[in-house]
Amino acid sequence: MPDPIITLTTDFGTSDHFVGVMKGVIVSIAPRASIIDITHDVQAFDVTEGAFAISQAYSYFPKKTIHIVVVDPGVGSTRRPLLVEMAGQYFIAPDNGVLSMVYRGEKHKVRHITAERYFRQPVSRTFHGRDIFSPVGAHLATGISPARFGKLIQDHVRLTLDQPTQTGKRTWTGAVLRVDRFGNLITSFHIDAFAAVATRPFEIAIGFEKLTRFAQTFSDGQPGELLTVIGSAGFLEVTANQTSAAKLLGCAAGSPVELTLY
Amino acid sequence: MPDPIITLTTDFGTSDHFVGVMKGVIVSIAPRASIIDITHDVQAFDVTEGAFAISQAYSYFPKKTIHIVVVDPGVGSTRRPLLVEMAGQYFIAPDNGVLSMVYRGEKHKVRHITAERYFRQPVSRTFHGRDIFSPVGAHLATGISPARFGKLIQDHVRLTLDQPTQTGKRTWTGAVLRVDRFGNLITSFHIDAFAAVATRPFEIAIGFEKLTRFAQTFSDGQPGELLTVIGSAGFLEVTANQTSAAKLLGCAAGSPVELTLY
Amino acid sequence: MPDPIITLTTDFGTSDHFVGVMKGVIVSIAPRASIIDITHDVQAFDVTEGAFAISQAYSYFPKKTIHIVVVDPGVGSTRRPLLVEMAGQYFIAPDNGVLSMVYRGEKHKVRHITAERYFRQPVSRTFHGRDIFSPVGAHLATGISPARFGKLIQDHVRLTLDQPTQTGKRTWTGAVLRVDRFGNLITSFHIDAFAAVATRPFEIAIGFEKLTRFAQTFSDGQPGELLTVIGSAGFLEVTANQTSAAKLLGCAAGSPVELTLY
Repeated sequence: MPDPIITLTTDFGTSDHFVGVMKGVIVSIAPRASIIDITHDVQAFDVTEGAFAISQAYSYFPKKTIHIVVVDPGVGSTRRPLLVEMAGQYFIAPDNGVLSMVYRGEKHKVRHITAERYFRQPVSRTFHGRDIFSPVGAHLATGISPARFGKLIQDHVRLTLDQPTQTGKRTWTGAVLRVDRFGNLITSFHIDAFAAVATRPFEIAIGFEKLTRFAQTFSDGQPGELLTVIGSAGFLEVTANQTSAAKLLGCAAGSPVELTLY
Repeated sequence: MPDPIITLTTDFGTSDHFVGVMKGVIVSIAPRASIIDITHDVQAFDVTEGAFAISQAYSYFPKKTIHIVVVDPGVGSTRRPLLVEMAGQYFIAPDNGVLSMVYRGEKHKVRHITAERYFRQPVSRTFHGRDIFSPVGAHLATGISPARFGKLIQDHVRLTLDQPTQTGKRTWTGAVLRVDRFGNLITSFHIDAFAAVATRPFEIAIGFEKLTRFAQTFSDGQPGELLTVIGSAGFLEVTANQTSAAKLLGCAAGSPVELTLY
Repeated sequence: MPDPIITLTTDFGTSDHFVGVMKGVIVSIAPRASIIDITHDVQAFDVTEGAFAISQAYSYFPKKTIHIVVVDPGVGSTRRPLLVEMAGQYFIAPDNGVLSMVYRGEKHKVRHITAERYFRQPVSRTFHGRDIFSPVGAHLATGISPARFGKLIQDHVRLTLDQPTQTGKRTWTGAVLRVDRFGNLITSFHIDAFAAVATRPFEIAIGFEKLTRFAQTFSDGQPGELLTVIGSAGFLEVTANQTSAAKLLGCAAGSPVELTLY
């Protein structure tokens, strides 16, 4: 049997000892677990950014992978810890909507984690990544059945994350979901919902620019030329060959994007 | 037998090849070692910050874990490399005080590492993380006995790290030990030494503010409200719900904190 | 048999999900692979910086290690993916010169990867790290023979990276290859080619300073004093004890360095 895989997605950064502590807790309980970082650089307290990161990464992992997601501004309050089963994988996270983009479109079972015997004791009020989420994930990795951690619930938090809304006969208004490391602007227009852009004339208005054609890839343009591509996750991206489109356009996560189909 | 665990705490950052090189050296000697990063973002040359990081992390790891700590402004000079046994774990570090907060309160045995047959040859004058600390840690992970690396010593460097000093009948002056990623100010007042704060009225003076009550957790306050909490490591922390207390107060590591007990 | 080792060197940063996705693809194909990050903080699109990072790291890894290097401004264009065998190790990278400093001085075999059955399907135009380089590396880790991935080629791209050129009877002009985390300036003068500096008087002109003597290590000077040392990789480095030489001198990667031998 292969070693169990546990991934971590947090807003803890890597300058503090927090992530190291979580890993110590995990390997103390599940010595054979293989731990993989998705990212720890989610903006502090930014549940939407955490939701995007895990939603873009999980499907590339094998069945039975355990994804621990800790972006948790409500730590120590009454918000519930959750264990989610979906697509043959597991997700452990606070019930604050950080899994909203994971839930989409697939059947999922959600449990409220209440079995304190799987927590690290005493449970602090400020570091549930260490005291609840990591030990629960590690115990799950050792083969404990999901049902042992708590009962199924239906009323878990689902955020309405940025989805384009129709604002005219031929016009939709969406937003920039994320600016990646290269300055590419990942928009909320997904090719599955807007397949027509591939076959019909269109215009994307973003910042002070209007873009009207697709490129196949980043390097199709002149250096610095603004391009629209279908990104690796299926969202329309505004990009500039070897330059930051975000800087060229003065746009950031949340900036509005308007799509017109002709 | 589970695979041996080696943790790394350095000021090398992650932009250079240094950490990758250390890991290459380790897996070349101890292919079964599982390597976990505590942090590589200790401020360059900041022995105190390194001391804090490893002291906050080590206790969460299983027995026999090997902690390699390389914050080493004196690399290439005559400062000694050390192998420390404590609490069933191992620590490998330069003798510059970086383990001072680890030594506290527990019995420990300290050896001066002199067995050059376990070094990478030739030993450079500038990268002992690669040439001494990593290979020694890896050889230890393969089962070599600690005594083989060098003789016990007693005169290892112990820094007097920030501990509050009594400055009045009811007043102690301490300091901010660290500002974490969220802007929480971790002070040098530990709940073990100042248990009275939980039961008696008190005042904490920091920056231009005076705080007089405890919260249970970060989210107890209004967004932006300054709070005092007992942090996950037992130190009093000054925090602000979903905001950086450090920015609100204009404080940083080293800033004075005054505690008055009434 | 020990688990196969795969290293990653990219310009993807660690704030996005990209690196996590690559690791998910790898462990899905090669569950026993042990993945080690060299660095993901190569400056975006900077092939030379990526070339330096992998060239400084690979030799510390055991035989059969698989190094995946993705600094790939031409992703989606016609540039070829390569599989290189050298020194008993494997390198997988785009054919843009990012392996130029690895090729130096050792025999190597280069294959153009064309076996699409080892790619992730469909292959995107924008994320070959996920769709080509990671799955090929993972399949190689499972024991597939290199010859199965594509045919040998001879015309792979080799960049003329910064090598000092003789500009006078006793004078060579080189450059700063890299500024490391500590502000040390790693120059393009390698001790193998300029062994004379160890035995003859010399002068290094950099910024507005002229340096004329070697130190053994960083800590030989007064704090802040500029020193020349032979760095851990054999290149001459200009350093300042516990201070950034780069800041003192106002120099960066690419800054000219002039060496005169007397």
